[in-house]
Amino acid sequence: MLCDRSEELLAANRCDLEAAPGFGLTEVQSDRLRLTSERIESIAEGMQQVAKLPEPIGEIIDRTIRPNGLEIQKVRVPLGVIFFVYESRPNVTADAAALCLKSGNAVILRGGKEAAHSSRAIVEILIAAAKQTGVPEDAVQLVTTPDREAVGYFLSMREWIDLAIPRGGEGLIKRVAAEAQMPVIKHFSGNCHVYVDADANQEMAEAIVVNAKCQRMGVCNAAESLLVHADVADSFLPKICQRLCDEGVEIRGDEKTVSLFSQAHRATDQDYHAEYLGPVISVRVVPSLEDAIVHINRFGSGHTDAIVTEECSTARKFAAEVDTAAVIINASTRFNDGGEFGLGAEIGISTDKFHARGPCGLKELTSYKYIVYGEGQTRT
Amino acid sequence: MLCDRSEELLAANRCDLEAAPGFGLTEVQSDRLRLTSERIESIAEGMQQVAKLPEPIGEIIDRTIRPNGLEIQKVRVPLGVIFFVYESRPNVTADAAALCLKSGNAVILRGGKEAAHSSRAIVEILIAAAKQTGVPEDAVQLVTTPDREAVGYFLSMREWIDLAIPRGGEGLIKRVAAEAQMPVIKHFSGNCHVYVDADANQEMAEAIVVNAKCQRMGVCNAAESLLVHADVADSFLPKICQRLCDEGVEIRGDEKTVSLFSQAHRATDQDYHAEYLGPVISVRVVPSLEDAIVHINRFGSGHTDAIVTEECSTARKFAAEVDTAAVIINASTRFNDGGEFGLGAEIGISTDKFHARGPCGLKELTSYKYIVYGEGQTRT
Repeated sequence: MLCDRSEELLAANRCDLEAAPGFGLTEVQSDRLRLTSERIESIAEGMQQVAKLPEPIGEIIDRTIRPNGLEIQKVRVPLGVIFFVYESRPNVTADAAALCLKSGNAVILRGGKEAAHSSRAIVEILIAAAKQTGVPEDAVQLVTTPDREAVGYFLSMREWIDLAIPRGGEGLIKRVAAEAQMPVIKHFSGNCHVYVDADANQEMAEAIVVNAKCQRMGVCNAAESLLVHADVADSFLPKICQRLCDEGVEIRGDEKTVSLFSQAHRATDQDYHAEYLGPVISVRVVPSLEDAIVHINRFGSGHTDAIVTEECSTARKFAAEVDTAAVIINASTRFNDGGEFGLGAEIGISTDKFHARGPCGLKELTSYKYIVYGEGQTRT
Repeated sequence: MLCDRSEELLAANRCDLEAAPGFGLTEVQSDRLRLTSERIESIAEGMQQVAKLPEPIGEIIDRTIRPNGLEIQKVRVPLGVIFFVYESRPNVTADAAALCLKSGNAVILRGGKEAAHSSRAIVEILIAAAKQTGVPEDAVQLVTTPDREAVGYFLSMREWIDLAIPRGGEGLIKRVAAEAQMPVIKHFSGNCHVYVDADANQEMAEAIVVNAKCQRMGVCNAAESLLVHADVADSFLPKICQRLCDEGVEIRGDEKTVSLFSQAHRATDQDYHAEYLGPVISVRVVPSLEDAIVHINRFGSGHTDAIVTEECSTARKFAAEVDTAAVIINASTRFNDGGEFGLGAEIGISTDKFHARGPCGLKELTSYKYIVYGEGQTRT
């Protein structure tokens, strides 16, 4: 239906594009906002893919028969009402609606003002589709008042909204986390590390570091920091720094790094905390595996952290002790993603530990209830 | 070790008992506080049972191999640090410590002032045991400052504490839920219902209602409200009301109930909201299954709700539409319990939907992380 009504969508999108300079959007940001027939088709395809995923609701997660004959079923159910606050691109409106509805929830969407017309047009089409297919038409709602206070109002509705999901910049996420009276699935920054161990296959390490940093720089699972074991710093660091330089990446390193690669700048603690989302990487030489773990647990954001090593016990220690949503052994950090993990689609990557951690697909948008079947059992 | 050092424990407990009247504790409350050699043995046994449960940490919850050869493991890990705030009995100190440690967490215990000496003695013994067995001795800590502000201080430590669990009266739970900056597992009131359908086996219904209400009145999974389908009100209500009366239970019913059983008092909306935890029950005659579901979703607390019916489609509709942690079909509400569900032990029964719902055992005190095994894979 999105494709059938693409004229309407494109017209609404033109209103947003005309208003974009007034909101101070750059050319690149405006382009992200732009819909074309191809982009509308790809949005529709994304929704169809979600529709085809296995039904999460009603799944029997666990089932036991107790000695007294009671059958205890743990059954997946929706969470209820999800408040989704996001910035920027119109496709997020469609993606979020698809994921929330497929997981049996109702969703209240609050998009950015820059995409207001496009989002409204998408939601109107979704509601029309809901009417046709028997889905309750109130299951998708869009908040259209432009004032920021509206968000605070929704975040206080603990009794009516079961989950808030912010998606966007750190400012938005912090605000939602601070104000929400209901649970929040947060997707904080991705300060992702690659640790190259003394026992790494150096060719593999080079390929992984370059891929993790450069394959797509503006995303949360891109590497922002490289740690190298001191034993291999002399052989590995100059090589990898040159490769990264060739890709246009600025190196900010510790003393040892600068001594081995003269084009590197000195890094500060702020650099080790930074999520650059661009062509900069922080580098540190660490004397041991333990120091690498301590560094990541101190500076990392608990998103994605990789190790390159051929030594099994080293990999196991790293996997056990780095406190992060995803530990990647001998592969690129870029694989921490709902699609790559086989979840089908994702609404974000949680850096929380409670309820959902890592990529959040349909199951992460659900709860469960117990259903107990008896034949008159009473307790003695 | 608790048993070996029972003299010490009993001495500490005597201090609490002597102070009890000063805190305004009744005889019954003082008795709950009292330790005896037998009670100490039973506390130790409870801890040993938890120790014998299967290890939750390290469990591979899910494992897939992706087409690119990556192995994605979803592995159970501890949440981190749990802040456990509770009232009353000293055995809770030992139970909570056992459950938190067995699930790999550290725990900060904040018990009631009435049991301060006993709790301190128990924790000292646990710390000594930890030293002997190689468990980090800081893994169990007791907050001993008496002022209430200390609780608020801990509830603000979002960066250091991963989960707060309040256990006690509704006032305590509401305070913790309102102030906590970290996630909370709440155990709100249990306003549990039994709905007796038109198609119920009436003998079974009678046994279930009496058991649910009377087997132990002061607990959260005891029934507080009885709904009866209008078609069987004439035949069932007088019988069950008389049985409950014989057990010393006061009946507070709607007009129809009072007309059928003259000893019944009239119920208010407050009665339908109430968790009596004692010898009172609210009763209502409902014209249909749908009305029973609406009533429970309006007045219930989402804890435990039972239906008695021989009709499969009725049971299925009730199970699907009542929004509660545990739906019980043809059995007593009293079965909603970690032990009865086979979880081994529980730290409480969650009435939340996020992360944990229903009885919370070891698994509910854990999170997970992804561990991804590759051989040099990069993303294209």
